[in-house]
This record gives sequence, structure tokens and C-alpha cells, in this order.
Amino acid sequence: MSVTTPQGFRAAGVPAGLKSTGAPDVAVVVNDGPLSAAAAVFTSNRCKANPVLWSAEAIKTGAARAVVINSGGANCYTGPDGFALTHRTAELAAERLGVGAVEVQVCSTGLIGLLNDSDALLGGVGNAIDGLSDDGGHAAATAIMTTDTVAKEFVTRAEDFGDSGWTIGGMAKGAGMLAPALATMLVVITTDAVLDSETADEALRAATALTFDRLDSDGCQSTNDTVLLMASGASGVAPDPAAFGAALHGVCRDLALQLLADAEGADHEIAITVVNAASDADAVEVGRSVARSNLFKCAIFGKDPNWGRILASVGTTQAAFDPADLDVALNDVWVCRSSGPGESPDGVDLTDRAVTVTIDLKQPDDCTATVWTNDLTQAYVHENSAYSS
Amino acid sequence: MSVTTPQGFRAAGVPAGLKSTGAPDVAVVVNDGPLSAAAAVFTSNRCKANPVLWSAEAIKTGAARAVVINSGGANCYTGPDGFALTHRTAELAAERLGVGAVEVQVCSTGLIGLLNDSDALLGGVGNAIDGLSDDGGHAAATAIMTTDTVAKEFVTRAEDFGDSGWTIGGMAKGAGMLAPALATMLVVITTDAVLDSETADEALRAATALTFDRLDSDGCQSTNDTVLLMASGASGVAPDPAAFGAALHGVCRDLALQLLADAEGADHEIAITVVNAASDADAVEVGRSVARSNLFKCAIFGKDPNWGRILASVGTTQAAFDPADLDVALNDVWVCRSSGPGESPDGVDLTDRAVTVTIDLKQPDDCTATVWTNDLTQAYVHENSAYSS
Repeated sequence: MSVTTPQGFRAAGVPAGLKSTGAPDVAVVVNDGPLSAAAAVFTSNRCKANPVLWSAEAIKTGAARAVVINSGGANCYTGPDGFALTHRTAELAAERLGVGAVEVQVCSTGLIGLLNDSDALLGGVGNAIDGLSDDGGHAAATAIMTTDTVAKEFVTRAEDFGDSGWTIGGMAKGAGMLAPALATMLVVITTDAVLDSETADEALRAATALTFDRLDSDGCQSTNDTVLLMASGASGVAPDPAAFGAALHGVCRDLALQLLADAEGADHEIAITVVNAASDADAVEVGRSVARSNLFKCAIFGKDPNWGRILASVGTTQAAFDPADLDVALNDVWVCRSSGPGESPDGVDLTDRAVTVTIDLKQPDDCTATVWTNDLTQAYVHENSAYSS
Repeated sequence: MSVTTPQGFRAAGVPAGLKSTGAPDVAVVVNDGPLSAAAAVFTSNRCKANPVLWSAEAIKTGAARAVVINSGGANCYTGPDGFALTHRTAELAAERLGVGAVEVQVCSTGLIGLLNDSDALLGGVGNAIDGLSDDGGHAAATAIMTTDTVAKEFVTRAEDFGDSGWTIGGMAKGAGMLAPALATMLVVITTDAVLDSETADEALRAATALTFDRLDSDGCQSTNDTVLLMASGASGVAPDPAAFGAALHGVCRDLALQLLADAEGADHEIAITVVNAASDADAVEVGRSVARSNLFKCAIFGKDPNWGRILASVGTTQAAFDPADLDVALNDVWVCRSSGPGESPDGVDLTDRAVTVTIDLKQPDDCTATVWTNDLTQAYVHENSAYSS
């Protein structure tokens, strides 16, 4: 199960010496076609890394033949030399693959403000291209890891969505700086379905809006986030749009939850669902405010069903609700009813990693949204005080 | 140095049994006049505690003869019984002091969702009133502590501001949930200057806007925050408005920095100053975004001069700046110039508790603002996962 499961893709991951550990740090995924339709979404952070500046321009063609990804250095805030290195990376890959440079997407991840060693990076790109294979997906997924403890991959098939003949594969990295409007995450999704770039773009935006955009592990928004979808058309099958959309949503959701489960130092995965909101935007705003409350996140780490900290976060939002009439459940126990004590918090068992929070805003509309986050642990603080990123 | 240093005030602090430790937990501060001018600012959280609901209405009279404060329970989300208890507290104090109930401000702090024992609280109020004295300020400052490790008090005199004859005293509590638009803090400021309530209100809003409102220890906004100013007029001196404003600003700033220095688990006090912003609002937005970055706060805990995490936070704002032309200094070392590496971070010594961050947005306007925060430490996580608040 990997980005090379769909037909028409080859991949590789190699060590290029960017990581001091000697672990693999350069990945290449190539779309051998016949199609080269592609779409991508990028961080909304205004301070964007050089590869994002390059890739966001290049993707405007609606096509991508390859993506080159390095870990070990984010190539962000590295000045004109940094952008030049991204450009040379794309040119080298294009030359070796016999495609145009604008058909090469580039992603980087690692420490901000540090320029990658260009000889090491370019050498790695060459070696990776030499090593491309149609079962190289897992090697690529491994080479993009930074503080990730496991490679993150997923595959889904048309048959699971009432259609037939096409497949979607995906890989992701990211374990810190996970935040809205994309986490510090790099995601590559491949499909052998027959898609044009407009359809790919629409489907990708719809899927990421409900998945990666609703992941808020630590409230910190990265400079390098990229989600890239490449369609080879190698199956020869034009998918049913609804089935493809549902399948792509499933891939994005699974990869997002894999990121969440591997977040730095986390002890719990928390799904915050807001129901009976006046709008989807209200539901997301309320969910996100709770996801960003350090006090709430510490309480979950301490297995403390502290609903007061949830209401204190809800109260900071502009969403429509009556402050005197809110209900809150933790793991389906309604510990707060009408903004006062409800069922006993003693009935809430926070031992398992999975925690659910449900917040009922009691508006006549029935809009709802789920935002995912983690608890805040001493291990998170340790990792992020000891590791430069 | 306390709230009883200005003429015309008495105070007391007693143990009433609300805290399981038996430590003092009820404080009363009385204004014996001749004036009773008062002003207050409250949390902007829409989920407000019962004492805030009461006090915000009562202060509309522009007068306060007394304030009753309890620690040990926030009386927030305790339903109609909670509001009734706040009301009875005000009525009891009013009856014992021979004033009107609307002249009594009430504040509470502690766990949300837990109703205080009314017999204990009301008994404590009676005992505190029996024990009122003109040197009771320190006892009151001690009784309002929760996770504070030290009582927080400050006094300033007219003579230090080119005026004469009047004095300002203040006390504060708060060590967690410190956030914008007021921290979880309760602050009582007294003065014997001759003030009307309108002047008191203007001066208080001007001072808090630049001090308590710019304190953002952990991004969490409390439900109980209150800053109360009471003027007795007992000095008989009408102050020079500019001198009084400057003195009040000094009191608020000193108490705010005392709160910062005692923030839960913190190892560093961080002053983030944004310069050459297009507006004060831009400067505050940028400063606050950095103050809320867990990754930046972890880096400071780890003594890591990680300027990339600062730029990543700046990029999440809507302030006017060129992402390719930002300068950042840590402890006055300009580690980032024009959005690239500047002076060596090796020259930044983060051993001392006091850390300064300077962010130059390089706009033609020269607006500036300072936001104060703390680092994020394992001790913070421990305290807030083990302690219900």
C-alpha cells in the first residue's frame, strides 16, 4: 500500500546526507502517465518556504510529472540561494526525466533558516531517480520522515466506493507544527484514474477542507505544508465523480488521522465535535478554540474530565450560542448540561488514547464539524525544546 | 505596600474553609470614603462567572464601597444557585457595612463548575468584616492567592510623578489562564485621590489596555477576570490627570509583570516587541501570535534561539509586512535579517529568565507594541494536568 500502488507511478527514497543520522532523506515520485493532471494545496502561512513558492507557481499549469521531496532542511528563510536551490532541484529532475522543469513539484521539510547542502541534495536527487521502481512507494514514504516514528501510507480502491478499475494511494509526513489550513505535513496522493486537472483540483480542495484543514495538533502553522495529487490515467478508467470524491476523502482522512496518532509526545487523540451550530464556520471556530486551549489539552493528558476549561474556550469565540445554555460531553458522558454540572465526571474514563468531546450549541440549525487535536504533554515540551525545527 | 496604604481603606483576609488546605480564602477591601468612585474592567470571555455578571451590573452605578473576593471556587457554571450565592454575598457584606448591595463588588477564583459551600463562604465574609483593619492589605492579598507562589502588591506615590498628596495601592492574583483581554487574574487597586467615576473609568481603561491586556502567558482566557479601581478621596487632593494616569499605568504594569513572573511552571519571562508596524493593532497582532506559539515557547524553554518559529508565527497574521523582508532579534542579537540568517545565533544567551524578542516589520509607520509571555515548560504541563482549575 503506497503511492506506487496505482498504475503509472514509480518512486524511490535514498540517503543523501542531509540528515545527520544518515537515514534516507530524498524521495522522488514520478508519474509515467499517460496523463499528468495534478492539483495541490499549500500552507496559508504568508511566510512560505522556497519550495512552496516554486511549486505554487508550477502547479498553475495543472500538470506534474514528478515530485522531489527532501527532509533534513526546510529551505525556508534561506534567501535567494534557497530559491535557486529549489529551482536547480526541479531542473535537474526534469533533465534526468526528460520533462519540463515546471512539471516538477518540490517539497522540503526540516529546520527553518538552514540552507541545504546543494551537492548532497542534488546528488541524492540523481541517485533517487536512478533507483526509481514501481514498488518504491514505501522507500519514498520513509525518506520524507522527520520526527515521525512511523511511515504513513494508505491505499483505497474504487470497488470500496461502488465504482471499479481505479486506485488511490497516498503517503504523508508530519508530527509537529500540525495546524489548521494544513499542518507541517507533506502529502503525496497518486491515482491511476482518468482525471483532468480541474476535476483533480476540485476533488482535492473538497477533501482537504474536511480533513487536513481540521487537524490542529499544536496550533502552529507551518511554512512548508503541501498536499499534492497526481493522476496518471494509467487505469484508463474515468471514475464516477461521487465515488472518487468519497474515496479521496477517505484517503485524506486516514492520512490525517495517521499524522494525529504520531504527533510529537501525544498521549491522546481528541476528536472535538460541535453539533447544532448555526453554521459550519461556527462549528469549526468553536472546535478549533478548544483544540488550541493548552489548559484543556493538559487536563486530558492528566485524565481530568475538566469541562470548565472547554466552556472557557467556547466563550472566546464569536459563534452563535447562549452562554447559559451549553451542553458538553466527554466520551459521551454529558458532564455539562445547560452550562452547569450534569452527569458525574467520575463516569468519564480517559485511559484510552481516543477521546471524544461533543459540544452542543443548541442552535436551530444543525450544522456540525469535527476538529482533531492531541493532548499537551511533558514529552511534547521535551521534544520541542530539545529539537530544532 | 498594599491596598490599605492609601488613606480611607481597610482590608482583611481570613480562612473560611473553601480551600482544602485551610489557607486564607476570603478577602474584603472596604472604601471608607468620603468618596466611593469606582471603575472596573472584566473578562471579554462570553462565558462569564456569576460574580462577573453581578459586578459588571453593579459597577454601572460608578460607585463601590467594598469588594469581597474568595479563592477556592470560581462560581462559574454553577447555575442559578451560583448567582444567588454571589447576590447573598453582596447583601451580607452590604448589611454588615451599612451600604447598599449594589455598592459591593464580588470576585471569585478557583475551579469552574463547583458551587462554593455557602455557609463557609458567608461565614468567612462575616469574619473578614469583623477583622477589617487599616493594615489588612497584605492579609487580603494573601487570601486571594490560588496557585500563586507569592502575594502580589504594589504602591506608588504622587511625588514620583511630579504631583503631590495622593497614593495608589494595588494587589493581584493570577498564575494560570493568563491571557489577553485580561488574564485569570483578580486585581484591586485603591487610591485616596479625589476622582469622579468617569475619570476613574477612563484612567483604568487606558492603563489596562497597555498592561494586563498585553499579557498572554498561555493564551487561555478566563471567565472571572476583574480589575477594580476604588477611589476614597481621603487625601482631599484632586490629582493632576497626566500624573495620575502615569502612576496608574505604573501600578498596572508592575502588577502585570508580577503575574508574569509567577506564571505556572515558567522558566522565562519573554517581552515581544514589534517595531515599525503599520498600526498599533498590527503590532499587537504580531506580538500575540508569537506569544501563542507553543513551538516558540518550547524553544525558549530549551534555550534554543530558534528564529524560524518566530517567523512562522508572524506569517499567520494579517499585519502589513513583506514576508521576504523581516528582521528578528533575540536578546538584541539580530539573528534574522531580511528574512534570512543574520548574526550567529551562537551569540544569544538564553540563560537569564528575562528574554527579549524584537520583530521589525519595516513599515514606514513607526507603531510599536510589547506583548509579554512565558515559555512553555514541562512544569506547566505537570501543574495543569494535575490541578483542576
